[in-house]
Amino acid sequence: MASGIAALLFDVFGTVVDWRSGVVRDVAEVARQSGIIVDSEAFADAWRAAYAPAMDEVRRGELPWTSLDDLHRRALDRLLPEFGLDGLDEERRRWLNTCWHRLDPWPDALAGLHRLKQGFIVATFSNGNVSLLVDMARRASLPWDVIFSAELFRRYKPDPGFYLGAVDLLGLEPRQVMLVAAHHADLSAAAGLGLATAFVPRPAEHGPGQLTDLAPARDYTQVAADFIELAAALGM
Amino acid sequence: MASGIAALLFDVFGTVVDWRSGVVRDVAEVARQSGIIVDSEAFADAWRAAYAPAMDEVRRGELPWTSLDDLHRRALDRLLPEFGLDGLDEERRRWLNTCWHRLDPWPDALAGLHRLKQGFIVATFSNGNVSLLVDMARRASLPWDVIFSAELFRRYKPDPGFYLGAVDLLGLEPRQVMLVAAHHADLSAAAGLGLATAFVPRPAEHGPGQLTDLAPARDYTQVAADFIELAAALGM
Repeated sequence: MASGIAALLFDVFGTVVDWRSGVVRDVAEVARQSGIIVDSEAFADAWRAAYAPAMDEVRRGELPWTSLDDLHRRALDRLLPEFGLDGLDEERRRWLNTCWHRLDPWPDALAGLHRLKQGFIVATFSNGNVSLLVDMARRASLPWDVIFSAELFRRYKPDPGFYLGAVDLLGLEPRQVMLVAAHHADLSAAAGLGLATAFVPRPAEHGPGQLTDLAPARDYTQVAADFIELAAALGM
Repeated sequence: MASGIAALLFDVFGTVVDWRSGVVRDVAEVARQSGIIVDSEAFADAWRAAYAPAMDEVRRGELPWTSLDDLHRRALDRLLPEFGLDGLDEERRRWLNTCWHRLDPWPDALAGLHRLKQGFIVATFSNGNVSLLVDMARRASLPWDVIFSAELFRRYKPDPGFYLGAVDLLGLEPRQVMLVAAHHADLSAAAGLGLATAFVPRPAEHGPGQLTDLAPARDYTQVAADFIELAAALGM
């Protein structure tokens, strides 16, 4: 087992689940029902890009605390007209907005998490709101021991209060907690606060042609191709 | 399925796990190692009684937020001399204090929770701190979807902020959430806030001769002899 690690925190979107395929699937379904031809991959990428600036406003304190579901919805309502979907009724908008609750894990994620759970506390560490993470876990059978969400602290990553708040709730020291993520930004903040880090690249997260987060950017505690390899590296 | 219920919140100590037997077991172990004869049942009851006044001080704002682990430890340190165990070293005090993390579920609890989880979000709703509830769930394989602890809100039951905070994090209305508990006080607060209620009596919680919480005290949404019967009553 890794020296002194007691708990693993997992970034969720991109690291545990394949958000892009899930969003593309449900956008395509809505387009089909509406009888409109939509580039659902472009829609998914635009949606992901569109809520980031609003999250930055929350981070800077310019916008009061707003959950990820609500940030998604604001971005969705702005985006629909651009794709010819401004006729979408309220019920379908709500359904589409919760596509982020219905994302599938990467192929290795479930088996890897079950192995890792034998030796470590496994927890979400996500900007997703609690109900989103609960719905996702129930649908996909993700075996979390505990849900840590930015919503509990009203601080989005990479706010140190979220990282250290989760460590504190576990009754652990930062060095006893490892962040598992496919993103350098998440891991860099963790390392700066004394947490252990595991980089698991997800080269298809952003679809074909992804240019970022493909290789380790610094000296992480662990680098693994997937959760199975991570489990083996951690002695599980 | 019960009309419109989406999530079940569970009181934990007494309702899901048998705290008295677990505490008695570990007190007896410490006494055996120390070569001292201790009435471990009296110790368990005295411990449970001893931390309640300190929790009331937190509730009234006279004491700053203190986790249940820390309240237990303060009470333990006061109690040990009364039982001739003042010679207990720090390592054993820490081990004994975490006996509350090592409690066993009532015989029906695991099977009942697995059935209920098929139809409802199942969550802790406990004054226990997060790490206590996580350790307990891992040891006993309790299949919680999400851990709600007073620690997340820094408000102990029956503070409405804890009840309504949990309902809000689930993205639900109070009427969509049912509190399951063996205690009238927990249920009464829930009913007053518009939550549904399920009374599951645990007539052995306080050992032989228990006089409280044996029969329904008011018109609860459901009354069931155990979690299996509750699952059946809720259509699962």
